[in-house]
Amino acid sequence: MKQSKALIKTLKQAPKQAEAISHKFLIRAGFIDTAVAAGIYSYLPLGWRVMQKIADLIRSEMNALSGQEVFLPCLQPKNLWQETKRWDTMDPPLFKLKDRHKKYLALGSTHEEVLTDIVRRFVESYKDLPLYIYQIQNKFRNEMRAVGGLLRVREFIMKDLYSFHAEKSDLEKYYDKVLKAYEKIFAQCGLKTKIVQASGGTIGGSITHEFQMICTTGEDRLLICIKCNFAVNQEISQAKTCPNCNSLLEQARGIENGHIFQLGTKYAKAMKAHYTDKNGKKQLIQMGCYGIGLGRLMATIVETHHDSKGIIWPKNIAPFDIHLIALVNADKIYQELSEKFEVLYDDRDESPGIKFNDADLIGIPLRIVVSEKTLAKNSVEIKKRREDKVELVKIKNLLNSLYV
Amino acid sequence: MKQSKALIKTLKQAPKQAEAISHKFLIRAGFIDTAVAAGIYSYLPLGWRVMQKIADLIRSEMNALSGQEVFLPCLQPKNLWQETKRWDTMDPPLFKLKDRHKKYLALGSTHEEVLTDIVRRFVESYKDLPLYIYQIQNKFRNEMRAVGGLLRVREFIMKDLYSFHAEKSDLEKYYDKVLKAYEKIFAQCGLKTKIVQASGGTIGGSITHEFQMICTTGEDRLLICIKCNFAVNQEISQAKTCPNCNSLLEQARGIENGHIFQLGTKYAKAMKAHYTDKNGKKQLIQMGCYGIGLGRLMATIVETHHDSKGIIWPKNIAPFDIHLIALVNADKIYQELSEKFEVLYDDRDESPGIKFNDADLIGIPLRIVVSEKTLAKNSVEIKKRREDKVELVKIKNLLNSLYV
Repeated sequence: MKQSKALIKTLKQAPKQAEAISHKFLIRAGFIDTAVAAGIYSYLPLGWRVMQKIADLIRSEMNALSGQEVFLPCLQPKNLWQETKRWDTMDPPLFKLKDRHKKYLALGSTHEEVLTDIVRRFVESYKDLPLYIYQIQNKFRNEMRAVGGLLRVREFIMKDLYSFHAEKSDLEKYYDKVLKAYEKIFAQCGLKTKIVQASGGTIGGSITHEFQMICTTGEDRLLICIKCNFAVNQEISQAKTCPNCNSLLEQARGIENGHIFQLGTKYAKAMKAHYTDKNGKKQLIQMGCYGIGLGRLMATIVETHHDSKGIIWPKNIAPFDIHLIALVNADKIYQELSEKFEVLYDDRDESPGIKFNDADLIGIPLRIVVSEKTLAKNSVEIKKRREDKVELVKIKNLLNSLYV
Repeated sequence: MKQSKALIKTLKQAPKQAEAISHKFLIRAGFIDTAVAAGIYSYLPLGWRVMQKIADLIRSEMNALSGQEVFLPCLQPKNLWQETKRWDTMDPPLFKLKDRHKKYLALGSTHEEVLTDIVRRFVESYKDLPLYIYQIQNKFRNEMRAVGGLLRVREFIMKDLYSFHAEKSDLEKYYDKVLKAYEKIFAQCGLKTKIVQASGGTIGGSITHEFQMICTTGEDRLLICIKCNFAVNQEISQAKTCPNCNSLLEQARGIENGHIFQLGTKYAKAMKAHYTDKNGKKQLIQMGCYGIGLGRLMATIVETHHDSKGIIWPKNIAPFDIHLIALVNADKIYQELSEKFEVLYDDRDESPGIKFNDADLIGIPLRIVVSEKTLAKNSVEIKKRREDKVELVKIKNLLNSLYV
């Protein structure tokens, strides 16, 4: 993409209300726009490219878990939410509105009700189970105080996976599989997350875990064992020593990037979702749910992958593979590179200083500079965003050298 | 995908309120669920696969038009809509709600305001233009009477492209390019559309065209010249003879699948969106917008691609390439086919009659049957959904024969 034609505008200053590093950099580098109101963002071309890469990465793991993708309504009628009593217990954060027939609707902040309604009509016998259904789509929360950029918002894109089982043991087995898939997803995004025992909150479930990115600026307060793997959200425990190994627990802060729940029969009971077992007996369907907020994940990646100059994207979710900086015309090199890579081509009529600063801010993993000086040596200059080393590479060897 | 594990449930009867053929078949074949309220649908795995294919096809044409993809908020504050006065003039169909600060928000039914707001802050000089921005995402309309399945809904997925230009002549040129791209998109979906002069309605613009699928069950009333290419929506003309060639105009009905608008400076004027021209003079930005409703497109395809038994999907947007019907175990063939094709594998413990009927209803272009009878001849039976001819193919030649 030619930068001169792109909806990319970097800012020297972040808006005053931006406190989190991710908020500042994502706005300054032109990934998101504060749009129009607190906690509501537009994803600009750079930001949307990252979101689509994150979505693809998650989608591929969901498919590997035999997940089937669906797309569910945002507008959900009151009666569905009344069945689980969450019309009241989730207000806040449920957004409510009336249609022209004066009927109340909620804007989906989660989709247990809608999907359980589909599944209770679909499932007849144990043969119809298990079922693994997921969605990647926008959701809404009527937050009082939307702060921290993409970390706490009123409109957001979530991946939610819902699983339905005949037996509790089957739910438990699948839950472990999802847990491992989540570790893989976060690792692919360059995040080291801690699995933390947590509260089910308004979603529910006795066994639930959060994937927390340990980070001094995180909103969540955690207790982490200094010896074993134990970790717990202080919401549900104030223990002073580790229940597993009796070692000391240390306090830490984290950003929650994923949350998985063994819901058991909570929704099946409330919404009468049954199956017939092998003996012809009616049983309640067991359910699990598993969420990742994509925008928050993008922000968390920035929280941990940056330096003083800007973002440093992990390779597989970067908006582009290569940032080609032209100090002289480099159309030919751009065309050649574009056949094999995703290239942002800085063909703007700007000074080298502005171009280099923008490249550091935007954070594409590989920078290639073409200047009179490099061309005099039939070369281009290559630099990785996360390294200081600059390398001259002959143009004729360029494509090969990039595959290393 | 194994059908025994899939969220696919065919119905013998469509719900009573379903009148349109597309509505009946999409529900009966398990592509969509009437969910929870009138005009609000869940896309089930089969339907969502078709929607994603339509989205990919459109996305590739938008990128070819130098479009940059973004994702914009559904929640939009009152003040933005007041700038264009559409807070009042679009109510209905604007959904309105209040947040916890008692501030009014609208649910986006279109995104001229949000995007013009971004662009007026982004564009400084003529050098920043043109800009081509598109989105593929859900939108909302507070319809009084949501009927016809996916043809008239309250929540829907749209592709909207918005273009911004310095000169009117540049807008006109781009408008023609988009018009041609739209013809290509609809052709790829197997639709022959008529380009019709239309009304700008609440969107605006003096020059606007609709892409109408001529169809006796369509909601729109059109006048079409029997000789030349002229066609007009009766909303804006009651002419009796063709203004181009004086021939007779015939009445026809159509389903609108796309609508493009030369908005000119309507939004720029209302929202003060300017650029500085070569002479340093402030000028209003010219704008165009170009929409396709993806759900309605899917429904229109079904309206025109079906027989009495069910849907007949065009190849490139079918939910799967192959429907493999196993009357005996066909796991090995399934695995081999899956390496090269998208296969729905009917491994259910059901009668041949039920399986064949479901295959006809779902409408995957190619059906492959494996039975004792075919295996006795080391063969499988191949049948195209749109043909009656059945062919025996040796299993060892199967993959090769499918590439023809």
